[in-house]
Amino acid sequence: MSYKELIAAKFQEIQDSICLALEKCDGKARFQEDQWTRPEGGGGKSRIILNGNVFEKGGVNFSAVHGETPDKILNALKLDKADFFASGVSIVIHPKNPFTPIIHMNIRYFEMTNGVWWFGGGIDLTPAYLFEEDATYFHQELANVCNAHQQSYEIYKQIADDYFYIPHRNETRGIGGIFFDHLNEKSGKSKAEIEAFVLAVGNTFAKTYTTIVNKRKELSYTEENKNWQKIRRGRYVEFNLVYDKGTKFGLDTNGRTESILMSMPPEAIWEYNQQPAKNSFEEKSLQYFKKGIKWI
Amino acid sequence: MSYKELIAAKFQEIQDSICLALEKCDGKARFQEDQWTRPEGGGGKSRIILNGNVFEKGGVNFSAVHGETPDKILNALKLDKADFFASGVSIVIHPKNPFTPIIHMNIRYFEMTNGVWWFGGGIDLTPAYLFEEDATYFHQELANVCNAHQQSYEIYKQIADDYFYIPHRNETRGIGGIFFDHLNEKSGKSKAEIEAFVLAVGNTFAKTYTTIVNKRKELSYTEENKNWQKIRRGRYVEFNLVYDKGTKFGLDTNGRTESILMSMPPEAIWEYNQQPAKNSFEEKSLQYFKKGIKWI
Repeated sequence: MSYKELIAAKFQEIQDSICLALEKCDGKARFQEDQWTRPEGGGGKSRIILNGNVFEKGGVNFSAVHGETPDKILNALKLDKADFFASGVSIVIHPKNPFTPIIHMNIRYFEMTNGVWWFGGGIDLTPAYLFEEDATYFHQELANVCNAHQQSYEIYKQIADDYFYIPHRNETRGIGGIFFDHLNEKSGKSKAEIEAFVLAVGNTFAKTYTTIVNKRKELSYTEENKNWQKIRRGRYVEFNLVYDKGTKFGLDTNGRTESILMSMPPEAIWEYNQQPAKNSFEEKSLQYFKKGIKWI
Repeated sequence: MSYKELIAAKFQEIQDSICLALEKCDGKARFQEDQWTRPEGGGGKSRIILNGNVFEKGGVNFSAVHGETPDKILNALKLDKADFFASGVSIVIHPKNPFTPIIHMNIRYFEMTNGVWWFGGGIDLTPAYLFEEDATYFHQELANVCNAHQQSYEIYKQIADDYFYIPHRNETRGIGGIFFDHLNEKSGKSKAEIEAFVLAVGNTFAKTYTTIVNKRKELSYTEENKNWQKIRRGRYVEFNLVYDKGTKFGLDTNGRTESILMSMPPEAIWEYNQQPAKNSFEEKSLQYFKKGIKWI
């Protein structure tokens, strides 16, 4: 088995275990799988969960694609023509209850026939309503994974703060998390060590997220709470379509649109010049959607 | 009165008359005005209509701004530092009834202290459900304006087809219209002639749009029709946030976010891999969202 096949198999294991854990948490809905192939090489398995008890819409996607490396990447790295292989797991979950947060995770491996390789990934959380203890727990779990693998939570947390930012709103997308890219031997860690870290990030997802969701999924909510969730989902749309590099890259390179845009919320609203009421839960939550907050 | 003041005054007249015509068509809701100033120079009047009988959400915005020309524009034109003045009217209307179409219009004037100037603009229509007679009427009205001013409907229609296109969906945003930019003396027409054409485009808006809306605004519709409208509004969001140059320019240059994003629909949904039923009105409509259709 080549390294490419091995890492793709490990990613698929993570996809499987996450889908099982989310189905258990939901208690009703099941993931539906769409297998797809990419004309230029490779393909993937998109798994979508819809209209559950807990999850309104979510995708847990695996892909392993290969072909000629896009010029954009080669030019940026000043490299000659080479073929590439890329595999990863990409997740966005939109839960129903407005007190449960949206989550995003991505872990990925990239290599080229010229010997260049790297891992990348991250997890970030986007609550509509901010519960401090959930935010602290979430960041502590991520810090634990980083610490266990001698990786810097502080640096990756800072990168996430900077990345998941909506300049035209002067807001972060949510409460961030960790984000890292181009991790390879130049980081001072071996390929095996980096792989272990990336898989650990993948494996911490289900427990961390379902712990938070289980705590909030039964909370009763009003029409007003649902409305605020839809407004915040609108911000999620704005970030993903205007700024997210993965979305842009996918759309630019003729990726499978339905798999890329599974990240879109089931429903979003835009109110003109919406301002939450003074001292409301909405306004207090908004104050946490900033860079540089120390959650731990 | 300088030419800048004159053209800004004429644009404001168009804003006024369009708001009046739309309020009359709606019969209930009134435009609310927000005046804003731009720290770097100038400002505008955003007029928003919400929750009407006919119009669910819409904006008719006027702006006249000035300051240092952004490097992006100067570099593209290979010009040295210069100040600019830009004024225009920008409209997006999201009507309530799913059988009435979204409309967008923009007319604008731009000049720099180095003597460079141009007009730009356009109108395009985005129905969720396609009535051929409405599409033909709409395009005929635009052709009439172009013909009356010896401008080429065919060329501007083609530019609109190419511009209002969503590559990742392989769909046009709607049924297009006309679109033109950088119209100046190099086009063989005088400034006065071009101005007259641009103002005529602005002045044809209200009659053309309200004629179509009045024909469809009383049609009864189902939950399913409303659902399809929200799906199509999702496509509108995708176009505006991923591809629209005006939106991108506004967000990049620190424009007023609420005025730029008044184009967002009140409500949009994203269903995974949504396909309209065979031979349904939805499927038939979809077949018209293509480039190159001769409507007249």
